[in-house]
Amino acid sequence: MTETLPTIAILGGTGKEGTGLGLRWARAGYRVIIGSRAAERAAQAATEMNTLAGVTTVQGLENSAAVQAAEVVVLTVPPDAQMATLESVQALLRGKILVDATARVDYRDPRPPEGQASGRMAQTLLGPEVRVVAAFQNVPAHALKQLETELASDVLVCSDDAEARTLVVGLAQAAGMRAYEAGGLDNGLVVEGLTALIIAMNKRYKSKTGGIRISGLGV
Amino acid sequence: MTETLPTIAILGGTGKEGTGLGLRWARAGYRVIIGSRAAERAAQAATEMNTLAGVTTVQGLENSAAVQAAEVVVLTVPPDAQMATLESVQALLRGKILVDATARVDYRDPRPPEGQASGRMAQTLLGPEVRVVAAFQNVPAHALKQLETELASDVLVCSDDAEARTLVVGLAQAAGMRAYEAGGLDNGLVVEGLTALIIAMNKRYKSKTGGIRISGLGV
Repeated sequence: MTETLPTIAILGGTGKEGTGLGLRWARAGYRVIIGSRAAERAAQAATEMNTLAGVTTVQGLENSAAVQAAEVVVLTVPPDAQMATLESVQALLRGKILVDATARVDYRDPRPPEGQASGRMAQTLLGPEVRVVAAFQNVPAHALKQLETELASDVLVCSDDAEARTLVVGLAQAAGMRAYEAGGLDNGLVVEGLTALIIAMNKRYKSKTGGIRISGLGV
Repeated sequence: MTETLPTIAILGGTGKEGTGLGLRWARAGYRVIIGSRAAERAAQAATEMNTLAGVTTVQGLENSAAVQAAEVVVLTVPPDAQMATLESVQALLRGKILVDATARVDYRDPRPPEGQASGRMAQTLLGPEVRVVAAFQNVPAHALKQLETELASDVLVCSDDAEARTLVVGLAQAAGMRAYEAGGLDNGLVVEGLTALIIAMNKRYKSKTGGIRISGLGV
């Protein structure tokens, strides 16, 4: 492998989903930077992740510094914090790829989100100089931490930029997931909504591991 | 089997999807009634289906007569005709189960539908005396006609009525599909939207058989 892997910053990287994704990328040889509003929390999470992943490359920084150091920025904050977090680093995101994992589904009252896709809202805020990709919205955080376990759910990658879509499919595969390009950003609304259906099915069939798989594409 | 199978009327039963579903139910021993606005067209379709399915039980009737003769009514008309068709048989649907397969996705410009789920709109129109179930929104019509072929896509069944949901899962299984209860009617909006993603993936991966499978439920 002579190709240089992009550096990945994860905003909300101290949360379960961010940590799980970061662990898998760090093990796959990517340089991972955990972003947090508090630099100390980020540094602490990075130390724990280095131990868990058996690497020394994970670094923890305040969100702005994390964005500046990365080519790809992954957002795994709670839905309520999506817009404020993006606004806080908006100027620094120029020229980069933003991977938005926001799924606005309330686990206590799961229903499909209304209005625009989260990724579309991010793209509208950030403008055409940032390539927004919606992905990882319904990856179960607990399964991410089991590094050797294959995930039950495939990743559907939506973006208006075909090149960025392909790159993020590669990131998902590097993290041990099956991933598929699934059209433009607006389609991300459906992927967010799938979370509500997965919760409903898990409840109905008394499972914790329900997921979606893509079939029949021949790839 | 001593249990009596419900009689199924299919409105829009002369179309590809209705015909495909009807063939599979007829072969499974259900009494199937093809409904159409024109009784002659319905009768003609029924004759062809009896030949294809190797049965003599399929009957063709004008929509109102079809609804009256059935316990379960399946709606497979184009999205534009959904509301008008339901209004034309509204009073006759009382006490019955309506299975709404409407997916408002334009194949030439596929995008997730906005607003309410089709099934929710049907339920609002018909009121609480009709149990509406959303299902079969993204079953590929061409695959339905290949009676021996397992379908690439699972059926997600959404309804506010748990008993009706279970019954429709049984109908899907009788037609040779894997099916899962996936929560209330509002979740049907996501299932409709999946059609847009499947189209996008088929286009991207040069396939015609892309579909969704549910995994990890242990059933």
